[in-house]
Amino acid sequence: MRAVDLIRKKRDSGEHSREEIDFLISGYTKGDIPDYQMAAWLMAVWIRGLSPAESAALTECMLYSGQVVDHSELPVKKVDKHSTGGVGDNTSLILAPVVAAGGLAVPMISGRGLGHTGGTLDKLEAIPGFTTGLSLADFRRVLRECGMSLIGQTGEIAPADKKIYALRDATSTVENIGLICASIMSKKLAEGIDALVLDVKTGSGAFMERETDAVRLAEVMVDTARRMGKKAVALLTDMSQPLGRMAGHSNEVIEAIDVLRGKGPDDLRELSIELSAWMFLLGERTKSVEEGRRLAEDMVASGKALAKFRDCIRLQGGDARVIDDVRLLPLAKKRVDILCAKTGFVTATHCREFGVALAMLEGGRGKKEDRIDHGVGLEFHRRIGDRVQQGEKLATIQYNSETRLAEAKKLIESSFVIGDTASPAPPLIRRVIGA
Amino acid sequence: MRAVDLIRKKRDSGEHSREEIDFLISGYTKGDIPDYQMAAWLMAVWIRGLSPAESAALTECMLYSGQVVDHSELPVKKVDKHSTGGVGDNTSLILAPVVAAGGLAVPMISGRGLGHTGGTLDKLEAIPGFTTGLSLADFRRVLRECGMSLIGQTGEIAPADKKIYALRDATSTVENIGLICASIMSKKLAEGIDALVLDVKTGSGAFMERETDAVRLAEVMVDTARRMGKKAVALLTDMSQPLGRMAGHSNEVIEAIDVLRGKGPDDLRELSIELSAWMFLLGERTKSVEEGRRLAEDMVASGKALAKFRDCIRLQGGDARVIDDVRLLPLAKKRVDILCAKTGFVTATHCREFGVALAMLEGGRGKKEDRIDHGVGLEFHRRIGDRVQQGEKLATIQYNSETRLAEAKKLIESSFVIGDTASPAPPLIRRVIGA
Repeated sequence: MRAVDLIRKKRDSGEHSREEIDFLISGYTKGDIPDYQMAAWLMAVWIRGLSPAESAALTECMLYSGQVVDHSELPVKKVDKHSTGGVGDNTSLILAPVVAAGGLAVPMISGRGLGHTGGTLDKLEAIPGFTTGLSLADFRRVLRECGMSLIGQTGEIAPADKKIYALRDATSTVENIGLICASIMSKKLAEGIDALVLDVKTGSGAFMERETDAVRLAEVMVDTARRMGKKAVALLTDMSQPLGRMAGHSNEVIEAIDVLRGKGPDDLRELSIELSAWMFLLGERTKSVEEGRRLAEDMVASGKALAKFRDCIRLQGGDARVIDDVRLLPLAKKRVDILCAKTGFVTATHCREFGVALAMLEGGRGKKEDRIDHGVGLEFHRRIGDRVQQGEKLATIQYNSETRLAEAKKLIESSFVIGDTASPAPPLIRRVIGA
Repeated sequence: MRAVDLIRKKRDSGEHSREEIDFLISGYTKGDIPDYQMAAWLMAVWIRGLSPAESAALTECMLYSGQVVDHSELPVKKVDKHSTGGVGDNTSLILAPVVAAGGLAVPMISGRGLGHTGGTLDKLEAIPGFTTGLSLADFRRVLRECGMSLIGQTGEIAPADKKIYALRDATSTVENIGLICASIMSKKLAEGIDALVLDVKTGSGAFMERETDAVRLAEVMVDTARRMGKKAVALLTDMSQPLGRMAGHSNEVIEAIDVLRGKGPDDLRELSIELSAWMFLLGERTKSVEEGRRLAEDMVASGKALAKFRDCIRLQGGDARVIDDVRLLPLAKKRVDILCAKTGFVTATHCREFGVALAMLEGGRGKKEDRIDHGVGLEFHRRIGDRVQQGEKLATIQYNSETRLAEAKKLIESSFVIGDTASPAPPLIRRVIGA
């Protein structure tokens, strides 16, 4: 087998066998196949696409390029959730303690934010002392002790994905459903889980803006998980405006604690409960989603979920006192309000731009090397469907550096679309795929 | 400007500006843009294509990545011919002396054979002592002294092409009209010519098997040459069977000498005269193609063309006595005939396979590193349209090594298609494009 022939095959819209994909991925991981051949193949894949069988084979080859964590000593089911990302999406910080409190194990390997999206690891690192860089041995220990652990990708997990992702980033081959699926699923399946709930975002703040693309991605990921013997469903959820009322690292930790106390914004609470409920069902903890919802609500109401979060912070080296005193989190020193320019209704938002504005203020990363100011944040006062008066506050920026403040202000202001007639917000949970 | 954005643009079927192509090509040549980004861009180009303006811009950028030879001290027009390659195509060895004898200068930078095609440089190197690796200074000196010089690509000529071609070879991005055009034309225009005649082959032994592809390539190359201020036409010629009666390096030198003596096979003589005639017309040596044909025939009949070839061989260090005694060329020691299995008519040939068989016997290169036995050859006794009897000779193999002889014999035998009814050979010169 030669890489050049396999590149030609995909270029000419051919379908690869499992063996051919294995040849490419293991050859590339070992360094036998050079970057330039992989880059040409990735572009051919981007344009010609991958079949469901090819996506599953690619996922499997990337998964077995590294270690698959073995949690078989744990007597409970292991479940996780993955979100395709958006603005203000901090459900992981809520549902992991809820599901762990409910008796399942949540071994979560997460990523960092890039571009307009925030990353779970970055949010957790707003908590003083919290370490996301645990070894796999410590990851298993924390999981065993408190039923949840949240860490970053280690060198042992799907090294093929790490290498291929860096190449995709440099060759404009990121946004392809088969490649996205393999990248996500190879890492998630390496966690040693029994089941996975996918939160596939769609709308102006999502990677898959169009619902048809999001549905296709959801279907391919569910199909791939099942081909690998895992239970999976995907919730297609709305990202046409930020989730919750807050964006920014410390802000989202604060909002997660609020929800775990039974407070917080409705949309964030609803989605966190719904995702937890599906995790309970797939993890065979409950017999229905409805029963799962009740269990999730009980875990919040009883304070058990919050206690779980406290344990996890402590076990991962963080200062658990933040739960009772959020002023221990890094917070921005200055604030400025974004005022509404005319009276009317919020009819839409350019949701992605809120994330871009946050990155401008160092509350996110434009590129991988950028440093983050965890205290920078946005607070949203108005949502789609709301009536707004001229001069009223739409949002508040919490910032430290004035460097790009004017630019960020302008971007945020123009990202609220104000119309003359009310249009309701899209439903939060649009569909469940694979139920 | 960033390479990653330009890759994305081509991926999404966008059209590049002259500046964007220059950024990519000069960045790649300097090493600022890595192989993997160029590979991804090449695959996007292969699949999405290049517009005529993009092809011309790419040609220009590749041309100016290196030196353009200046022959302005020569008082005559400089003209060249380029063939897209085939089996038994040795017209360069004939028309260069004819056109030089007719009073124009022919500065020819040629390539080596690869796959099923032979290369002009390899054929010339069958002549003991002949050096194709002249410096550009020596190239200009030989051209000044005898009106023709045939050399290989030097490091100073279109270095971008050299680097990009190696990458295309490894990434299955060779067969694309825009890329082929830029690769050919950047080297040809670097010769410092005023006009170029293109011999674009089509049929079973050509790179562009289908006539529609060959026509498109011809049109793009003529268009590109004109955008760069050069005169150009393309002859679309038949390669559904070998040109002439001989293939192999020494064999083709022998057959070229035959034609320069006014003998040799009709098809090879006709095409060499026709290409020379167009070179005379474009080089403003004659007022019509018809007048050009007469001049070319005169140069052969008078012996002036053969004398020119002799001068060139001598000036490039070769043993010019080969012209009078072809036994000074390396010749194979053994011969075997291919006999016809049934009575009927030759209705077609798998022409490419003759070249592949030659390479098997070390008379060509399967890959770049392969050594060549210049003495290995094929002689063809029957052509398309000929009546053949069972047991009659179709071809003769001249060989030294028996290693893959049986395989080559079988391939040659099966590459003559024998049918029950006569079908005439396709016309040798199908069309002239850009006349």
